[in-house]
Amino acid sequence: MLKRYIETCFSPALYEAEAHKDSIVVIIDILRASSAICTAFANGATAIIPVADVSEAKLYKDRGYLVAAERDGFILDFADFGNSPYNFSSDKVKNKTIVYSTTNGTGIINLSSSAYMTVIGSFLNITALTRWLITQDRNVLLFCAGWKNRFNIEDTICAGAMAEKLMESNLYKTICDSTLASIDLWSMASLNLPAYIEKAAQRTRLRDKKLDDCIEFCLTTDFTDKIPVMKNGILVDNIS
Amino acid sequence: MLKRYIETCFSPALYEAEAHKDSIVVIIDILRASSAICTAFANGATAIIPVADVSEAKLYKDRGYLVAAERDGFILDFADFGNSPYNFSSDKVKNKTIVYSTTNGTGIINLSSSAYMTVIGSFLNITALTRWLITQDRNVLLFCAGWKNRFNIEDTICAGAMAEKLMESNLYKTICDSTLASIDLWSMASLNLPAYIEKAAQRTRLRDKKLDDCIEFCLTTDFTDKIPVMKNGILVDNIS
Repeated sequence: MLKRYIETCFSPALYEAEAHKDSIVVIIDILRASSAICTAFANGATAIIPVADVSEAKLYKDRGYLVAAERDGFILDFADFGNSPYNFSSDKVKNKTIVYSTTNGTGIINLSSSAYMTVIGSFLNITALTRWLITQDRNVLLFCAGWKNRFNIEDTICAGAMAEKLMESNLYKTICDSTLASIDLWSMASLNLPAYIEKAAQRTRLRDKKLDDCIEFCLTTDFTDKIPVMKNGILVDNIS
Repeated sequence: MLKRYIETCFSPALYEAEAHKDSIVVIIDILRASSAICTAFANGATAIIPVADVSEAKLYKDRGYLVAAERDGFILDFADFGNSPYNFSSDKVKNKTIVYSTTNGTGIINLSSSAYMTVIGSFLNITALTRWLITQDRNVLLFCAGWKNRFNIEDTICAGAMAEKLMESNLYKTICDSTLASIDLWSMASLNLPAYIEKAAQRTRLRDKKLDDCIEFCLTTDFTDKIPVMKNGILVDNIS
């Protein structure tokens, strides 16, 4: 059997849409968009509509939707709540459709729309996600949201953790330097994940804004077996 | 005294010219452009004119210049030689001005032209370069050439080695995730550099093309104390 390829992209500015049109793209933005989306579905959300523009999010709000929207960590004034996974609690999101717009995450979800399939990954759903990927005979792109087009540490080590799990199946190969570096960084970070994340710039940004209460939760593995997937421009939790 | 910042850029596609207009930019393309340029000056070259376009290199050739030009590792048909540091031997380059065009390296040299200063770095001149940087009260950008806009391992670990040396001076700080990741990757790679480089995609590409004879040389530290610097669009070896 031909092995499938794993590649990793560190920034939206490095995304090569044509190269990944037949791949499953895994969106990784663990502090905090992809963790929040996984939490929303774990807590019973029906669907999430990702929108890149603030003005579009505002239009949805005016039409009566529940709106989660932030820029640089802060809740936009018209939004119901922001980007912390703790906002997506069962009492707020169960059986609801949520419109969601964030600094980095929702932009790359839309960027990957030409891929075969787009799913949402985080430490919160890592085992369910990688087990499901292994059942699919597809190349995988681990797409790190980064921060304003820059490389970031937290998404990279999550990509490394996913790549390691996929490689252990012996069904994948990689000749992608980004993937190999991610796996090596994960091997260092996994020795003490909270301590390693201390060095990440986003860790400092969230602390400075007193938005860091959710970090320990975002580093929790296997909080849920939900695998959010894009269908017709909307995230749902049914990959079948 | 205010500390200076170190940042690292993994790809020309991530370069932020405005952010680095007051910085010293170190161009890193160790397999093979930045190693070849350091070797040329070590062997007595007078100057190197970096040109990004093949057609421009051809024009220089027609005007009688010595031309080193390659694409994807292969020497262009009109060129005198290609991109291996071994081509830049004393008998060929001593007291000569060389026109030089490569797949990745010369493009980013020109891209950084708006910076305060652009210098060329590799393992071959790492101690001289970092010692000189420490004498300059300037922020430093370690600019990895990558490969066709993609992240690569070999330039990243060289950037990590340079960043580690600079940080040891206690004159710098960094809040750049790329720099922190580079330092960690270097800490792994430095345990056995040739073995680590085996995993790099460029290592495989060069082996496949039988162009890998120079790799061990490119991983040699402190072959020279020359620090090639851009002045008026031309590389010379006089930083003063």
